[in-house]
Amino acid sequence: MARFAAGLDFGTESARLVLVDVKTGGEAATVVYPYPHGVLTRALPDGTPLGPDWALQHPGDYLKAAEHLLREAARAAGREGVVGIGVDCTASTVMPVEGDGTPLCLVAQYATRPHAWVKLWKHHAAQRQADRLNAMRPEFLDLYGGRTSSEWLHAKSLQILEEAPEVFAAADRIIEAGDWIIWQLTGREMRSVCQAGFKAHWQPERGYPQASLLAELHPAFPKLLDKLGSPQTVGTRAGGLTAAWAVRSGLPEGLPVAVATIDAHAAFPGLGARQPGTLVMVMGTSTCHLLLSRHKVAIRGISGVVGDSVVPGLYCYEAGQAATGDALDWWVHTLSWAGDGTAPARSSEALFDRLGREAAKLPPGAGGLVALDWWNGSRTPLVNADLSAVVTGLTVGTTPAQVYRAIVEATAYGTRQVIELFESGRGIEPVTELRVCGGLSRSGVLMQIYADVTGKTLQASTTPHASARGAAVYGALAAGRAGGGYDAPEEALARMGVRDFIEYRPDPASHSRYATFFALYRELHRHFGEGGTMLMRRLKELQA
Amino acid sequence: MARFAAGLDFGTESARLVLVDVKTGGEAATVVYPYPHGVLTRALPDGTPLGPDWALQHPGDYLKAAEHLLREAARAAGREGVVGIGVDCTASTVMPVEGDGTPLCLVAQYATRPHAWVKLWKHHAAQRQADRLNAMRPEFLDLYGGRTSSEWLHAKSLQILEEAPEVFAAADRIIEAGDWIIWQLTGREMRSVCQAGFKAHWQPERGYPQASLLAELHPAFPKLLDKLGSPQTVGTRAGGLTAAWAVRSGLPEGLPVAVATIDAHAAFPGLGARQPGTLVMVMGTSTCHLLLSRHKVAIRGISGVVGDSVVPGLYCYEAGQAATGDALDWWVHTLSWAGDGTAPARSSEALFDRLGREAAKLPPGAGGLVALDWWNGSRTPLVNADLSAVVTGLTVGTTPAQVYRAIVEATAYGTRQVIELFESGRGIEPVTELRVCGGLSRSGVLMQIYADVTGKTLQASTTPHASARGAAVYGALAAGRAGGGYDAPEEALARMGVRDFIEYRPDPASHSRYATFFALYRELHRHFGEGGTMLMRRLKELQA
Repeated sequence: MARFAAGLDFGTESARLVLVDVKTGGEAATVVYPYPHGVLTRALPDGTPLGPDWALQHPGDYLKAAEHLLREAARAAGREGVVGIGVDCTASTVMPVEGDGTPLCLVAQYATRPHAWVKLWKHHAAQRQADRLNAMRPEFLDLYGGRTSSEWLHAKSLQILEEAPEVFAAADRIIEAGDWIIWQLTGREMRSVCQAGFKAHWQPERGYPQASLLAELHPAFPKLLDKLGSPQTVGTRAGGLTAAWAVRSGLPEGLPVAVATIDAHAAFPGLGARQPGTLVMVMGTSTCHLLLSRHKVAIRGISGVVGDSVVPGLYCYEAGQAATGDALDWWVHTLSWAGDGTAPARSSEALFDRLGREAAKLPPGAGGLVALDWWNGSRTPLVNADLSAVVTGLTVGTTPAQVYRAIVEATAYGTRQVIELFESGRGIEPVTELRVCGGLSRSGVLMQIYADVTGKTLQASTTPHASARGAAVYGALAAGRAGGGYDAPEEALARMGVRDFIEYRPDPASHSRYATFFALYRELHRHFGEGGTMLMRRLKELQA
Repeated sequence: MARFAAGLDFGTESARLVLVDVKTGGEAATVVYPYPHGVLTRALPDGTPLGPDWALQHPGDYLKAAEHLLREAARAAGREGVVGIGVDCTASTVMPVEGDGTPLCLVAQYATRPHAWVKLWKHHAAQRQADRLNAMRPEFLDLYGGRTSSEWLHAKSLQILEEAPEVFAAADRIIEAGDWIIWQLTGREMRSVCQAGFKAHWQPERGYPQASLLAELHPAFPKLLDKLGSPQTVGTRAGGLTAAWAVRSGLPEGLPVAVATIDAHAAFPGLGARQPGTLVMVMGTSTCHLLLSRHKVAIRGISGVVGDSVVPGLYCYEAGQAATGDALDWWVHTLSWAGDGTAPARSSEALFDRLGREAAKLPPGAGGLVALDWWNGSRTPLVNADLSAVVTGLTVGTTPAQVYRAIVEATAYGTRQVIELFESGRGIEPVTELRVCGGLSRSGVLMQIYADVTGKTLQASTTPHASARGAAVYGALAAGRAGGGYDAPEEALARMGVRDFIEYRPDPASHSRYATFFALYRELHRHFGEGGTMLMRRLKELQA
């Protein structure tokens, strides 16, 4: 009778439910729930001001979202119609909680302390802490491109310790929001290897970074190890729905709930990707590249590699480009400026369409422009936020569509570079399959340019639910065959992953022409990013 | 009784008259006459198509303009109220004519031959010819920054010879339009040292480039020497108005007419500049820099140095930036695109104003951007049309006003580089005075940035008549004291030059801050323009 798995996707501004038919992969319901408090960047709900680069969330929003979405699942599938629940969430989205899971920000004593709240992934105020950890060049970073990020758990935790030591001391646990949601639903703290591996440097051989290293950063920092927890493989059962949540949701007590996963990573099973050599690209404001492999090696510049984190039994490599849609948005926003300074002259959508149409008519090379795609710095391979974008080849004849195409091509060169970097890893399978999702996958122009630049066939899915669907896949695995789901990941992925793709095949002539432009991109990349020039860093410093 | 000198300025789209009071410098009349045929870029008036990069004019337009403007002068000043006429004209604007001055394009046999028409300064179809001359590296180019230009007389004449040998053979004379206008008015062919020196490589020691050199380019090219003529100092009398022109104009026969001059150069006397160490900048779509000196030396990258060409007895150095207003126009045009693709969303004027106002609020450094101002290639110092512009430091936060300011700053860095190059010449007087005219002199934001970047006080004139006024000064000198004008150039310049300037003094703090950004500009300049990278040339070639 139970036919559906529920995938809950906790994003930046809202959470989303997708109810997936376990047998057919069909979608029975999709619901979006915007967070009442959204993202807190200027002040706490009580008005306490926040510093620059802060970005917090209210944990109550997650619970309200979960209740609403699970009730919708019960309504759509029927009380007995759901086999299991999977959850994905942004990461590293970190919160200090008490031993029973109570967020410190909901304890009166700490409610006015910004550090007691949930630090959203894009909280960027812990850069100094990240810099200090990086300066130590610890060996454990070899599997993380040599650097930790200010967005990750260690930098954020160290910021709490240094700026609010009593909050740090009061926090029995420091936990990812995704893991905390699982804890709330099941009553059991159960951490995910995906969050721990990619955002807290956990590796099975040695666990989290060791106490002696943490002590070099702050004498009390080794206490962090007591606040974490041993992580579990994704796709396994974290526990069953509590009696209280059965009441809140209208679903049965004990309903299997899967270990949490990172939102971008959930897109991998969501797209049904399961083979070594398959690259999944989640292309929105930025691009997240996820590659599956049988082997674990350190590749300089790659953001991380973690086993059992996406498909049990295989390793997942993660890389990223910090500005993709963001860079195109910047250009559209710039062109909109002439209107009246605040509102765009025409809708962004109309501008995107027109730029895309005109750019599509241009040959490779964007009318003589080559750009570096560093509108938000470089994530892979340089891991350097001080870098900024460059456009070369401008003349009085340069058109807005040429610039647009140059930005698209620059991000495609960046992706080609990521693919070549992955493939340079010893033993790594060649990238034979490329699946794409995210907002940019809807642009045929952009997809074709990516196919032509990389020389790979792209399978693009326009679903907005790839992550939620992936979470549902994990929900079905948590249920197991006995519970109406699946035991074998391959089977769950094949049945429940997206099957409708638009295929973009590389045009051989364009691909060969792009080899020349890619060489020019690499030349700029070396000069501004790898060479002796510190021009961009100096530009940033001069602005500070 | 006669009180006025008439200055006729033959520009690209129109000719202009200014009637200047010889004693007070006051303007009695200003009249503009648009050329009926404008600039011919696609076809001859009869429909004969033109190739890419062609730009021609109709010589009849010059005569119609002269007649109209001189009649207006006679009307405003009275028949006996004009002491003399001066003429400036765009250059190198070159025409093949018969021995009696008849333009070949007005001879039935040649009327359908594009090469029989007037090649306007911005006819760019003779690039191959210029390249070949430059490849020979002849010594005479030492005084011309090492390169001839496709815009100059030799390249254009060689193009006529190679593509229309019978037109070349039929041309008894190949003459600058300005010199031809003087010939028409006076009945005497009388060439200007300004045109010959700056556009035909004439120097008093050796005349025009010699026959043996020309023969290396084409066996018949030495015949060019028979088609030129010995040039005269500017500010001298070329002749008197013919009887026919007396009738056409309503002015007296024999009225003194001065030797012609180049339009940009006429701005020098127009601004009353007369001291060694005075730099005049004519800032419009591009910038022309003119420096007066007692000494003649070869400076690598400077476009030319010619004696007696601007102020008799002194040398004038010319340098240039190929895109100034053009680069800003490009940005405004780009921002206007969002409207509907053809018409700007708002008037360009309004956009310029708003960009200027917002850019004025920014500190030096344009929000972390540094650009290279090569939107039309580099004239001084690199003399390389293959170069193109670069913008570095872009981020998702970059605003249109920051880009605008970055373009202004880049052009100011280019000017600072020109000044430093001038001053590097052995014996050249330091630049102590800087006078500015042209459309961009109206922008207070831009002028202040130039003062801050260069560390020099700017005297900006907003007159649109600087060149016509300069031509009038030469008209008064042609008349001489006996004829109601002047014998001494200094006196004419002091009395008749512009006296109203807006002064922009450098802010010491900004100037010191700009030293840092100028160093970054120089670093980019070296990398893309002087270093090993051929990136921009390759980009151009890939587009061809």
